[in-house]
Amino acid sequence: MAQVRNKQVILRDYVSGFPKETDMSIVESTLSLKLPEGSNEVLLKNLYLSCDPYMRMLMTNVESLLGLPSYVPGSPLTGFGVARVLESGHTDYKKGDLIWGLTKWEEYSLVPSTQILSKIEHTDVPLSYYTGILGMPGLTAYAGFFELGSPKKGENVFVSAASGAVGQLVGQFAKLTGCYVVGSAGSKEKVDLLKNKLGFDEAFNYKEEPDLDATLKRYFPEGIDIYFENVGGKTLDAVLLNMRVHGRIPVCGMVSQYNLTQPEGVTNLTNLIYKRIRMQGFNVFDFFHLYPKFLEFLLPHIREGKVVYVEDIADGFEKGPAALVGLYSGRNVGKQVLLVARE
Amino acid sequence: MAQVRNKQVILRDYVSGFPKETDMSIVESTLSLKLPEGSNEVLLKNLYLSCDPYMRMLMTNVESLLGLPSYVPGSPLTGFGVARVLESGHTDYKKGDLIWGLTKWEEYSLVPSTQILSKIEHTDVPLSYYTGILGMPGLTAYAGFFELGSPKKGENVFVSAASGAVGQLVGQFAKLTGCYVVGSAGSKEKVDLLKNKLGFDEAFNYKEEPDLDATLKRYFPEGIDIYFENVGGKTLDAVLLNMRVHGRIPVCGMVSQYNLTQPEGVTNLTNLIYKRIRMQGFNVFDFFHLYPKFLEFLLPHIREGKVVYVEDIADGFEKGPAALVGLYSGRNVGKQVLLVARE
Repeated sequence: MAQVRNKQVILRDYVSGFPKETDMSIVESTLSLKLPEGSNEVLLKNLYLSCDPYMRMLMTNVESLLGLPSYVPGSPLTGFGVARVLESGHTDYKKGDLIWGLTKWEEYSLVPSTQILSKIEHTDVPLSYYTGILGMPGLTAYAGFFELGSPKKGENVFVSAASGAVGQLVGQFAKLTGCYVVGSAGSKEKVDLLKNKLGFDEAFNYKEEPDLDATLKRYFPEGIDIYFENVGGKTLDAVLLNMRVHGRIPVCGMVSQYNLTQPEGVTNLTNLIYKRIRMQGFNVFDFFHLYPKFLEFLLPHIREGKVVYVEDIADGFEKGPAALVGLYSGRNVGKQVLLVARE
Repeated sequence: MAQVRNKQVILRDYVSGFPKETDMSIVESTLSLKLPEGSNEVLLKNLYLSCDPYMRMLMTNVESLLGLPSYVPGSPLTGFGVARVLESGHTDYKKGDLIWGLTKWEEYSLVPSTQILSKIEHTDVPLSYYTGILGMPGLTAYAGFFELGSPKKGENVFVSAASGAVGQLVGQFAKLTGCYVVGSAGSKEKVDLLKNKLGFDEAFNYKEEPDLDATLKRYFPEGIDIYFENVGGKTLDAVLLNMRVHGRIPVCGMVSQYNLTQPEGVTNLTNLIYKRIRMQGFNVFDFFHLYPKFLEFLLPHIREGKVVYVEDIADGFEKGPAALVGLYSGRNVGKQVLLVARE
């Protein structure tokens, strides 16, 4: 029975404040490359692991917040990933299949088949895309923008964390819909990317804007119809002052708040009434039924180069903790992926 | 040409902080009880004027926040009211008709016919009801609870300012729907009213609850499906910790915030994501098309005594400023109405 060495990224203890690389450690165990007798699980070789902001929330000892269980100190992180099936105890999957779904931060994983979200049928696009544009962040952008945002041609859209895994797609979806779209990000490099590569009409570096309300009034003299919320806190507060009547705020994330022990107070919520705004938190798991429709919509755009995707790929399993931690200081440019193995 | 003396409640100047009686004054002018030649306006004798929390917002010098213009210092307040038509320049209305709609805080008003929201056809219920249960607050409760709240039998509903013009109806609509409903209010008298007259399952005095989070956990061990938001601030913050997955928060008002120069910060908004909550500000004007359906639903319930309504009627025009100001200290018990004239 083949035994392999299996490196894992382990959470050492629950995290408070900003996560550090030292909150995780890399350990090595061995794994038998054979399914246990009668198991209906699936044995995976992980190829790409996805670094996503929500993961910070699972590093805290709280009851399942997102429909996902918190991490367990001493055990590997979990997350989305692209993997190859080595052995399968479920008839839907067979050896050699490529899949994406929920897996663990290790080289090889034994997972329940229910954690596989989709078999990968289209391999003319980069495999890593199934951690991003064609995976959870892509479907998140699609569901959040189209289902919750209810965009109409000519509307004004603002996206925060706009060069991130989700934001860069929301901006492009907004342009495809005929909207005016402005993005905020945290560096000149990201702002250039938004304007020159991702097709945003305008973009700004929020770190250089001391008065966000004034900034938003400059970019949106007539107000914002859709704010795609990724950051929360002060940005949300300034946005609330600049929403138009009947505006929509799909709330995808509030990454500025995840590492704070005392979250910032949002003071302008009365604007929800004045402007009759719909603000709606969501989770991609509620929209999984849209995945086939989403692929059908997006694959042709990708193939024709009408939608592009910027990835930041950390090459090598050992780089996992640094890549993940980097999300919270904005070190990544584009979707942060961890390359574990090429095949 | 008949001239009448016409008392008016005038806003003296824009208000900051809590409004005081002395922010208003009562003046007397004269009015000709005849429509100007060729006018298509309507001359009204005001019978009941409605005291509503939103009026505080119009006492500030801001651009129209609610689709209603701010008050003008030196001019009478405007608001909802029940009136009798004395002269009409519009074919939809004739002398003697009873109407409700937007009028001015004075004994007689000349208003554009477009400000009339409905002719009063059913007079077997108290006329004052058209400032409350059958008027703007009633339709607000109906639209907010049924349209935005999407209630289902067996769900858990929390209502703040629960004995107010809107809250007392939301609670009764929740019971009609088969929900469990708890209300908060600011005095023992109001709490008794909620439990003994208005049919709430439970009620509490928020002023006696030092830890609202703990209070809500006690009344809602399984969490809240619908929070009908009337107050904002600390209450909202505690509620966000206690919402259930896929909860809804129709945002009708945030009366605790209207008089603050610096609103309270709401810190628990990340729960919108964790619980996938829909939070939606609204305004009754967006739901006026539902008024006939609303009357058809509610009138039989009123006639059969299955829905009741508690009013606090100030008798006499001069009591207007005190009645209005009393809303912000919670002095009123039930819907605050100002009786100007009986016919």
